[in-house]
Amino acid sequence: MTLSFSVHARSSETAARCGAFQTAHGQVKTPVFMPVGTLGTVKALTPEDLKEAGAQIILGNTYHLYLRPGCEVIAPFGGLHDFMHWPGPILTDSGGFQIFSLATLLKMSEDGATFRSHIDGSRHLLTPEKSIEIQITLDSDIIMCLDQCIGYPASREDARAALELTTRWAQRCKTTWQAKARPDAALFGIVQGGMFPDLRQQSAKALGDLDFPGYALGGLSVGEPTDLMLEIAEAALPLLPADRPRYIMGVGTPENLVELVARGADMFDCVMPTRNARNGQFFTSRGTLNISNARFRQDTAPIDSTCTCYTCRNYSRAYLRHLYTARELLAYRLNSIHNIHYYIHLMADIRQAIAEDRYHAFRQAFYRARQKDAG
Amino acid sequence: MTLSFSVHARSSETAARCGAFQTAHGQVKTPVFMPVGTLGTVKALTPEDLKEAGAQIILGNTYHLYLRPGCEVIAPFGGLHDFMHWPGPILTDSGGFQIFSLATLLKMSEDGATFRSHIDGSRHLLTPEKSIEIQITLDSDIIMCLDQCIGYPASREDARAALELTTRWAQRCKTTWQAKARPDAALFGIVQGGMFPDLRQQSAKALGDLDFPGYALGGLSVGEPTDLMLEIAEAALPLLPADRPRYIMGVGTPENLVELVARGADMFDCVMPTRNARNGQFFTSRGTLNISNARFRQDTAPIDSTCTCYTCRNYSRAYLRHLYTARELLAYRLNSIHNIHYYIHLMADIRQAIAEDRYHAFRQAFYRARQKDAG
Repeated sequence: MTLSFSVHARSSETAARCGAFQTAHGQVKTPVFMPVGTLGTVKALTPEDLKEAGAQIILGNTYHLYLRPGCEVIAPFGGLHDFMHWPGPILTDSGGFQIFSLATLLKMSEDGATFRSHIDGSRHLLTPEKSIEIQITLDSDIIMCLDQCIGYPASREDARAALELTTRWAQRCKTTWQAKARPDAALFGIVQGGMFPDLRQQSAKALGDLDFPGYALGGLSVGEPTDLMLEIAEAALPLLPADRPRYIMGVGTPENLVELVARGADMFDCVMPTRNARNGQFFTSRGTLNISNARFRQDTAPIDSTCTCYTCRNYSRAYLRHLYTARELLAYRLNSIHNIHYYIHLMADIRQAIAEDRYHAFRQAFYRARQKDAG
Repeated sequence: MTLSFSVHARSSETAARCGAFQTAHGQVKTPVFMPVGTLGTVKALTPEDLKEAGAQIILGNTYHLYLRPGCEVIAPFGGLHDFMHWPGPILTDSGGFQIFSLATLLKMSEDGATFRSHIDGSRHLLTPEKSIEIQITLDSDIIMCLDQCIGYPASREDARAALELTTRWAQRCKTTWQAKARPDAALFGIVQGGMFPDLRQQSAKALGDLDFPGYALGGLSVGEPTDLMLEIAEAALPLLPADRPRYIMGVGTPENLVELVARGADMFDCVMPTRNARNGQFFTSRGTLNISNARFRQDTAPIDSTCTCYTCRNYSRAYLRHLYTARELLAYRLNSIHNIHYYIHLMADIRQAIAEDRYHAFRQAFYRARQKDAG
């Protein structure tokens, strides 16, 4: 019951590494960015759109899917893959972050988290066992342990209590996973500890003792400054087993990804490419570009002339600005296709730079390109 | 400056006929349904989606495109085809119907229609000449004359005045088209006359004298009962030149199309398949189906098991219901793909039935299938 993960190359100047792991639904090359399919759909995109953009693995949200449409709707399909028509690997989160960020938390106890649904106010108890069971019903390839997230800022006392509860829950998650999951579904532990490097290290070590197939850093991108996020990652990542994938949950900007890879991270997920697409913001090799800007009104050029995505191959800035300002549904899809393509191809470029041991130079060129004007 | 239209087969029991016409952007087989691309996009769909569904020609709305994004944005692309990435034929309407239905009409004079934009309240004058010039800028393959639409019910006096103004405007449209349009762009006259068969006949004859490459019936589907709409079509269609395509504007349900084809109509456009898709209603060979119905919650079957569209090949009713109830953007696309596919394939089936001179039997089978339960 471990993930066959192998590191193929390491950067000699940074902690960056590239490799691959195998799941029942296909291989995943790392470092990898996972588009977020909250409700069983990466918003505005089909699985074919994701494949064309080069997506290898997507994320599903346990909290959301448990509430809507509910496990009893997905179970007859044998899981999320068939339900949503995505044949590739799926990672599901545990619900811990959404209970903290989206639901109304009623009670956090040793047993689990009691919360009110953000949709209809209904009351639910999510225990570590139940989170794993839901993820098994979703037929997830990578299951995440239920964790307790805390806000920023938080006291050392709260951070310590949350990490210790998370560690005890991790043991219960592991027991359920060993008893009930299919043999090739992996379980990842989630490091907590707030913004306290020593607590993060305590968490990393405690979870390491539980010998998970992979590890994640949770509770980041909760409002802290970027430097602090990087400092925490830098403190915790080296303490995680080097032969297991390391996943930074819910992060982040292209710059964040480049920096976290340099510190040894292998996996990422974030709603930013799709959410910002829906808000008219495009990611490009030269930085971001807001399509509602009046200067694009008659601009016949594509978003990024170096981009090979469907949107850049076929549509102009003038057309995309028109669709966006008219709130046409097609805007959301075309914009999302570009941004997901950008993130996925950034990771492919990162893997190649690591494989050729020129990650430091890649990182310098990445920042240099951003000094120009994206428009 | 005429459209090379040829009739290939006629139904011996009805007035149905099948044929084809040629445009600079491709051939169109008739009877044909034209998806509506109001603002330079058939809502929620890409041109590739339309091609996969079998669309031959689409419609653009002059009123909408003139206001948003404006001719000066589309002109640098050489017209609507390149702007929206649709290489096939395009028909544009004249703006007459939207001035009547959507804008605030300030003044209708011999010169033209003065109206307030429904978007920003700005004041505009649309003359016959200007409507044609806008459509030429859009590089439309089939240009429509500017007409005056009236409501339902309307007095005989109002109906007569509108049709006579429409006839005088048609002459002015023709003059502008002859002077300025590319030689292979066709111009269609629009028959008015309200719900008065004799006025419709008067209009048809007057326009026939102007010798247009094609003819349309305008001002239908404005609230009148279906029987009256069919009666009007039945009165007017036989008076239009048999060697020119006959287009019924803005109609209608699948049943309407089957009936109007039987009365000799060749072309249709309607927002119904896409608008109803966005409201969760699917068209199927067994009638309509509303996906929000609770009975579809765990239904693993496709919308229509006989349908070959992308949506029916890959997604279940349970998934589509989930997307729709969660208001996920993908719902609008998947639902629209199915409904457009349904309309387009209905017309293909109609053409085949006419070619094999079994249109009467086809029509009977069409209604028989609808007596069953679509769900």
